[in-house]
Amino acid sequence: MSSESSVWAPRDLRLRLVRDRLHEASLEALLVSHMPSIRWLTGFTGSSGFLLVEPGSATLITDFRYEAQASEEVCDGVSVAITATDLFAELARCLDEGASGPRVGFEDHVLTVKDRRALGESCGAVTWEAAGPLVDELRSTKDPGEIEAISRAVRMAESALSEVLGIVTEGMTETELAAELVYRLRRAGSETLPFDPIVASGPRSALPHAHPGERKLREGDFLLLDFGARVDGYCSDMTRTFVLGSAARWQREVHGVVAEAVERAIAAACAGATAQAVDRAARDVIVAAGYGDRFGHGTGHGVGLEVHERPSVNARSRETLASGNVVTIEPAVYLPGRGGVRLEEVVVAGEDGAAVLTGFPRDLREL
Amino acid sequence: MSSESSVWAPRDLRLRLVRDRLHEASLEALLVSHMPSIRWLTGFTGSSGFLLVEPGSATLITDFRYEAQASEEVCDGVSVAITATDLFAELARCLDEGASGPRVGFEDHVLTVKDRRALGESCGAVTWEAAGPLVDELRSTKDPGEIEAISRAVRMAESALSEVLGIVTEGMTETELAAELVYRLRRAGSETLPFDPIVASGPRSALPHAHPGERKLREGDFLLLDFGARVDGYCSDMTRTFVLGSAARWQREVHGVVAEAVERAIAAACAGATAQAVDRAARDVIVAAGYGDRFGHGTGHGVGLEVHERPSVNARSRETLASGNVVTIEPAVYLPGRGGVRLEEVVVAGEDGAAVLTGFPRDLREL
Repeated sequence: MSSESSVWAPRDLRLRLVRDRLHEASLEALLVSHMPSIRWLTGFTGSSGFLLVEPGSATLITDFRYEAQASEEVCDGVSVAITATDLFAELARCLDEGASGPRVGFEDHVLTVKDRRALGESCGAVTWEAAGPLVDELRSTKDPGEIEAISRAVRMAESALSEVLGIVTEGMTETELAAELVYRLRRAGSETLPFDPIVASGPRSALPHAHPGERKLREGDFLLLDFGARVDGYCSDMTRTFVLGSAARWQREVHGVVAEAVERAIAAACAGATAQAVDRAARDVIVAAGYGDRFGHGTGHGVGLEVHERPSVNARSRETLASGNVVTIEPAVYLPGRGGVRLEEVVVAGEDGAAVLTGFPRDLREL
Repeated sequence: MSSESSVWAPRDLRLRLVRDRLHEASLEALLVSHMPSIRWLTGFTGSSGFLLVEPGSATLITDFRYEAQASEEVCDGVSVAITATDLFAELARCLDEGASGPRVGFEDHVLTVKDRRALGESCGAVTWEAAGPLVDELRSTKDPGEIEAISRAVRMAESALSEVLGIVTEGMTETELAAELVYRLRRAGSETLPFDPIVASGPRSALPHAHPGERKLREGDFLLLDFGARVDGYCSDMTRTFVLGSAARWQREVHGVVAEAVERAIAAACAGATAQAVDRAARDVIVAAGYGDRFGHGTGHGVGLEVHERPSVNARSRETLASGNVVTIEPAVYLPGRGGVRLEEVVVAGEDGAAVLTGFPRDLREL
């Protein structure tokens, strides 16, 4: 990640940053097709459309369904083109192909092979260039307004968690608990949840991505809750693992190892640190405790308009944290057949270390 | 759609149908990357993976997070390969590239340009061919077990609707009503909702894809609810539009036009009919009533493991309905600034006409 991406961009500067990048890449325009990136650049929240960014203009192309919504939502400097038929034909009308055939970038990490072919067919004079996740990179550095939205989503999730812990009882199923948690997240004002909550109990807590099932909660279970809320499009994402009744010694030990890994990773997550180093900080604790082969995923991921976005925090990541990156820290230990512990915080990387947005106590709580 | 696709495929025949298609297309294997299609073929419900279908074998390639889940879920005849690093490297290990370089199909409507490039880099001897939505086409014809799952999802949604109508009051916000509806859908046992419910009141009901907002329900409002449930992965999708208090004459008229359009489209939705003809049946009613320019979207879409799948039922669709296709019928009239009516049913196309799975009364109800 270049040093430029540590400059955060308030809404009215975002298009200018994209244009700077286009200029650097010798592109005459960029076709943005990733909807969270279109939202970030224009404010449009619909689920289908293209944004064409040119040096002197920006055009949102969408369809009839979003006509009223698009004109309400898009920011200054963006015009709206509505199509009754298809986006590609409208794009061809909006794009000045000129005589020489402009070089236009597209987001190859999002556009399908089929749509890439349609671009070639509808805009034949254009030279289409894979531009990579150019806007995603800009999005990874959050401005204060974005951090505030994520913080509100964190507080909303924590308030729903506090409420739901008051009604957890033995005999309740994971599905029932998930319904109660979803209800409280929505009542607290969350927009569309970033993802379906994970509610995993007993041995099922050892499945990193368990769907809530019909298993009933029992005394002695680990209870793992992984969930988030959404405010103004921005997501939160947090995980806590509890014990029903009194925690056994092995449960305390595993929980303690994971909590220690969280602390070490948070301490490492300052601007300028490599994502690999943050991952290693967590992983070293888990390896030293003898659970190295029980933590198979990365330590974290960026959070913003998407619940998984740049930067990735794992052993293969090539990214360096920049001031204003918002990432999760979520080490875990999974013991097949017995249970697992995952703890997840949301932090903002800064020059003097990470600010932790999640505030819910991390120590092992017995319910 | 060829006549073969009207043959429904129970789970153990599905891989065979894919292999038949491969043979017809002179492909030596197919790489399936669309997760709903992987679920349909193998039972695997994870969110990341590839399925490689070869004449004598089928291999699900996924990562560490899904190790336990994959071995529990996948059906007979499918082996599982787990990777700690990346799917492409594991794919290269699983795929016998041989000396001659096999022709292998990929799903170009799903695979990104970036991942297509990674295929070329990791499996250099393979000739990769865009295979189109081959599995999606097979999936569009539902077997009795699938129709039963969709029916259960329909009944779950209807039961939640009945419950929530009991608590609708003036002064309640759209957001609050959405939270109550989501809660009842989840309590009724729905898995991850197919989409976030649309709750749109008053003039906002004229926005085809409104997000629930802070607007309070008022006497005289149209109240549009569009929502669904999910059972065993299968979605339902339904819409009803109510009036708070006594309906005005214009509201009755618009509602009556849309209800008539629904009836005509259902009557047209038999196996062998073109999707265009079904769309026209609804549209003709709306055009004749003078609202032709107030119904800008298609009449419907297939429903199954995805809430929007094949076949499309609109004016540009080239598909022909086959026995066992499950589609929505959802004509609408949107009057900007005043309000809109949409009614949506789920039907199964059959030789003797359509069976309507939704049973909730369609006539205008005053709340």
